[in-house]
Amino acid sequence: MELTFLGTGAGLPSKERNVSAIALSLLQEINHIWLFDCGEATQHQILRTSIKPRKINKIFITHLHGDHIFGLPGLLSSRSFQGGDDLLTVYGPVGIKEYIETSLRLSCSHLAYPLSIVEIDEGKIIEEENFQVFAKKLDHVIPSYGFRIIEKDKIGELLVQKLMDNGIMPGPIYKQIKENAMIQTEDGKNLNQKDFIGPSKKGRVVSILGDTRYHEEHHGFIKNSDVLVHEATFEDDKSEMAADYYHSTTTQAANLAKTGNVSQLVLTHISSRYQDDDSQQLLKEACEIFPNTSIAADFYKLTIEHKA
Amino acid sequence: MELTFLGTGAGLPSKERNVSAIALSLLQEINHIWLFDCGEATQHQILRTSIKPRKINKIFITHLHGDHIFGLPGLLSSRSFQGGDDLLTVYGPVGIKEYIETSLRLSCSHLAYPLSIVEIDEGKIIEEENFQVFAKKLDHVIPSYGFRIIEKDKIGELLVQKLMDNGIMPGPIYKQIKENAMIQTEDGKNLNQKDFIGPSKKGRVVSILGDTRYHEEHHGFIKNSDVLVHEATFEDDKSEMAADYYHSTTTQAANLAKTGNVSQLVLTHISSRYQDDDSQQLLKEACEIFPNTSIAADFYKLTIEHKA
Ligand SMILES: [Zn+2]
Ligand SMILES: [Zn+2]
Repeated sequence: MELTFLGTGAGLPSKERNVSAIALSLLQEINHIWLFDCGEATQHQILRTSIKPRKINKIFITHLHGDHIFGLPGLLSSRSFQGGDDLLTVYGPVGIKEYIETSLRLSCSHLAYPLSIVEIDEGKIIEEENFQVFAKKLDHVIPSYGFRIIEKDKIGELLVQKLMDNGIMPGPIYKQIKENAMIQTEDGKNLNQKDFIGPSKKGRVVSILGDTRYHEEHHGFIKNSDVLVHEATFEDDKSEMAADYYHSTTTQAANLAKTGNVSQLVLTHISSRYQDDDSQQLLKEACEIFPNTSIAADFYKLTIEHKA
Repeated sequence: MELTFLGTGAGLPSKERNVSAIALSLLQEINHIWLFDCGEATQHQILRTSIKPRKINKIFITHLHGDHIFGLPGLLSSRSFQGGDDLLTVYGPVGIKEYIETSLRLSCSHLAYPLSIVEIDEGKIIEEENFQVFAKKLDHVIPSYGFRIIEKDKIGELLVQKLMDNGIMPGPIYKQIKENAMIQTEDGKNLNQKDFIGPSKKGRVVSILGDTRYHEEHHGFIKNSDVLVHEATFEDDKSEMAADYYHSTTTQAANLAKTGNVSQLVLTHISSRYQDDDSQQLLKEACEIFPNTSIAADFYKLTIEHKA
């Protein structure tokens, strides 16, 4: 699992930060990449990474503001020319279907792959073998969602040496042990799975929230995440402005990370009023509340390890 | 008059060439900039020039393919935040209105300036004090237009010294001479305007064509242009492919420039199959037919002088 921040600015593209998009690489896990938001020129940003558009099989749109969707028609069209012929599913608020279908129809863009568009509501939106995704409505000027991506726990490794020490040699029985809590050997011995399986591998949790005002009650949704990606459009002392514009400050995001007991916080969606020099100050005020914070820049990458 | 090529590639953005957009600066003439096509990330390209989006008051769309329009909603939205409050008019084929209105409505983008959208047909589409613009339907897989921008001729300068030598001193009479072919002085002398006005300044003509197959009969439309901007998606020996995909080759564009007796040809909309190294070959084959040819690159600028 690896996050690549493709656009980390708010509202408008600037020379330093493009508008919103984040890639979650699940190449090692399921050989796919998931994209969160797709502001204008996301496909251009992707050209400067090793991401292959055909590997993107899900796109999640937090909300319909232009800085989160105007790159979608271009990316969808271009993917046809980049060897993409697998199903691509776009998840987003009501309206996303009309937006995509109108753009593709009027531009006479014919996709070379099947496209599915799912207009979401709160709750579980994906249940697959390895992952679940939940959506929650946040508090923005238009409907805006957060996504909680949950990797399912994986059963531990077979303790082969211990099995052999107990006279249980490799064979079909190993598979039986992996799949059953208790089995009986041919000679009538009962084997407890837990005695011969190492510690299970806890799945990772990533929470990516769209534009939102700060609300303490969001902490239930992001609770215990390995990584929380949260907007921080404004600095600490602009909390009134943040409320007026339905955005959050650095310290509000840090407070949520702390209350929600997450392991790591990444701030993004930074207003263009802040230059590179200001980043240190933004980071400092967040770290005073939640030390394990970073501020994303375009092309910033973060590998999400399993907890020890 | 100055052309700035903001995107010179075909179909898809590449690292070298963005998708189509050309700015025609008329800052010296009328304090405005006109944009021709607006592929995705045109606003990003503009960030790297001295062009101020609020100075753009007309956008001409040749056709609705994504590589020519997907930057429009973003540019229109961003212009609101860049001090743009003057009327902006978009001219384009039928469908452009639905595309823009749907994108702005669903993304809840509220423009801070009046926007007018004109769905065009062939013929004269603009008649202003200093400029006329004509549109012509070309031959592409969907309706695609060419634009002929005509600067009106300007009356010459008053020959002040000659007037004074003839005893006609500065005063309201100078204005009368500028505005009338013949006037009578207070003491009954007839004055012919042409005797006291220097040579008139011939207006410049720029023809910018959208994606099209080559047709010799297009030469009437682009005739005697100071500059012809023509697509050259393919090299000379790919004329069959060009016809199949409704595009043109380098040498077809050069032939049109020659038949149309233009002063200068600029090739753009270059397929991404051609790398930087190939440009010399593309240029060479065009120059053999029409020597005053150049191949546009992103950010290539061309000042259009008055003919001597
Ligand atoms: Zn936003
Ligand atoms: Zn094109």
